[in-house]
Amino acid sequence: MATVDLQAAAFVDAQRVGHLATADAAGTPHVIPVCFVRVADTLYIAIDQKPKRGDPRRLKRVRNVLENPRVALVADTYDEDWSRLGFVLLHGLARLVERGQEHHQALAALRAKYAQYRAMALEERPVIAVDIDRVTVWGTARAAEPE
Amino acid sequence: MATVDLQAAAFVDAQRVGHLATADAAGTPHVIPVCFVRVADTLYIAIDQKPKRGDPRRLKRVRNVLENPRVALVADTYDEDWSRLGFVLLHGLARLVERGQEHHQALAALRAKYAQYRAMALEERPVIAVDIDRVTVWGTARAAEPE
Repeated sequence: MATVDLQAAAFVDAQRVGHLATADAAGTPHVIPVCFVRVADTLYIAIDQKPKRGDPRRLKRVRNVLENPRVALVADTYDEDWSRLGFVLLHGLARLVERGQEHHQALAALRAKYAQYRAMALEERPVIAVDIDRVTVWGTARAAEPE
Repeated sequence: MATVDLQAAAFVDAQRVGHLATADAAGTPHVIPVCFVRVADTLYIAIDQKPKRGDPRRLKRVRNVLENPRVALVADTYDEDWSRLGFVLLHGLARLVERGQEHHQALAALRAKYAQYRAMALEERPVIAVDIDRVTVWGTARAAEPE
């Protein structure tokens, strides 16, 4: 099912950073900036930070995803001309991908978008996958804009 | 209680846009870009968008706040040099301010930061106030940087 239409997809793909909101089992929200890549209706987010104790599963965003897979990611642009504001809000279910073909393809897509990941050893680290099931498009993200 | 230290405050105040995460009673997160201003340990966010049916209380962010006042707002800067990334994550409890002296002062602070609000009739609209109770500082947001 193509949840993300072409216009919203082009807007999302043009953004270098998104903001990922998660919530723990008690419903306390958390939000951080993340680098991400979209492959069809799935987002991939690398876990390149190391928490103090070494295990990426200890990161708050990862603990939240394991407790409550419902997440949201917003891709947006800011402009002082507020008539030019726009965002695409993607809702979905997150899961950890730790190995195998999907992990391999996710790293390849992340490295194609971000040169910064090409030199990083991410093979042993999980990737967060978000299967998008709802899309909200607002403002200029609705209008196709020439790059 | 001064929750936000001077260094984090300077970083937060320098950002023109933040990302506000809320969650509904079921723990489903939502995140949108927002303009905000900080006054001591409280953030104020205007509600300048009109939902289709006219009542600002119908906006998803407002409905979530009424259901579950726990929110998070992140202020961050993106840079292709990832050694320069930084964010300040503010957790707090949100409430609606609809009138009175705090409403008046919040609008004044928002209009001092954003010229765009000066011409807008916001007097009849609620403002979201977030009383900050926890602050996480990461990356370059930790280091005082000359503007």
